[in-house]
Amino acid sequence: MKFNSSLYLVTDSSLMEETDFLQRVEAALEGGVTLLQLREKQRTTREYLTLAQKVHALARRYGVPLLIDDRVDIALAMDADGVHLGQTDLPIAMARKLLGKDKLIGATAKTVAQAQEAYEQGADYLGVGAIYPTTTKVQTTLTSIQTLKEICRELPIPVNAIGGLNKENMEVLRGCGIAGICVVSAIMKAEDPKREAELLRERIESLRKGEKQ
Amino acid sequence: MKFNSSLYLVTDSSLMEETDFLQRVEAALEGGVTLLQLREKQRTTREYLTLAQKVHALARRYGVPLLIDDRVDIALAMDADGVHLGQTDLPIAMARKLLGKDKLIGATAKTVAQAQEAYEQGADYLGVGAIYPTTTKVQTTLTSIQTLKEICRELPIPVNAIGGLNKENMEVLRGCGIAGICVVSAIMKAEDPKREAELLRERIESLRKGEKQ
Repeated sequence: MKFNSSLYLVTDSSLMEETDFLQRVEAALEGGVTLLQLREKQRTTREYLTLAQKVHALARRYGVPLLIDDRVDIALAMDADGVHLGQTDLPIAMARKLLGKDKLIGATAKTVAQAQEAYEQGADYLGVGAIYPTTTKVQTTLTSIQTLKEICRELPIPVNAIGGLNKENMEVLRGCGIAGICVVSAIMKAEDPKREAELLRERIESLRKGEKQ
Repeated sequence: MKFNSSLYLVTDSSLMEETDFLQRVEAALEGGVTLLQLREKQRTTREYLTLAQKVHALARRYGVPLLIDDRVDIALAMDADGVHLGQTDLPIAMARKLLGKDKLIGATAKTVAQAQEAYEQGADYLGVGAIYPTTTKVQTTLTSIQTLKEICRELPIPVNAIGGLNKENMEVLRGCGIAGICVVSAIMKAEDPKREAELLRERIESLRKGEKQ
């Protein structure tokens, strides 16, 4: 499946009413988000499924692929476009076997070794970070710009930077060779999520000019 | 798949060292448990998977099917014998589509309507309860013996009673038409899990004498 990870929105509906959440996701899609991930840690399977179906309906309207964090069963049940897997989720090779070759599988990598392993197991892209401390994952460890650069150089798949990124602090990513950025709070907590997505999209496109594609 | 649910052990490894947990499960299998379910709510996907693989290796040695609570992806990834689904898990019809017709799917039902719906969606057996208050599911509601009897009478699939059952209080189930009982604490917290399983197995067999099969 072809995809563009330049502005990748990772969503978390906790601490928000569902209506507000869905409106923000739609505004972000209007603003130019190119890839979407639903990440829910507090919900039951049934609740996760129901929300995923609603978000999928929105994402389809904008032609944006929807990936499900962690839960291959939910992705299969609602025919999502793929999954994103962290180090505590199913091994990528197992997920690939269950999902088939046409679905997207993304992986989190904090080191070059993790990136290499994810690629060998069949990951389609990598999320690398956290670049900055983040409020959405409190216990996460940071990944240096040096490591990010090395992963981009060594791996032949798209690499996204993730972790506390916003339009004020992303200049540090210039020259790293990233395919895009993942954001959560920058858009989900923005006063105007659509405008924020537009600005982030412009910023990332300008930042990637001259990078290898 | 043929199965015997007469003594169905539902396991939960929380509050226990893994070595102790696996020893207790094996002792219970030696003692005559006929069906096994792994139910983990606190673990990450990867931890759940790893533990499930270990328990599956044990269960296979005793020819006892292993079902996974809630997580169809984990069941698929480690080729378990099936899943058990509650009202907050994937809908049974969706799980059936993902698992195929040869895997077991069990469902929790608290009412005749839930039992009927689970059967229509393709459940192979029902767990009905809680018969007694239980320490493993603190917020659960009780199901009356009257409802249990009605479900056994109306539904053509095996029905197991669940919830706070042990060898002292199970006489109430005589004449209900159950296929078996589900236990957690009665075996997992027993001083001698093997002996406890033996006694429970005898008790349930004697109690089911004269019931419809």
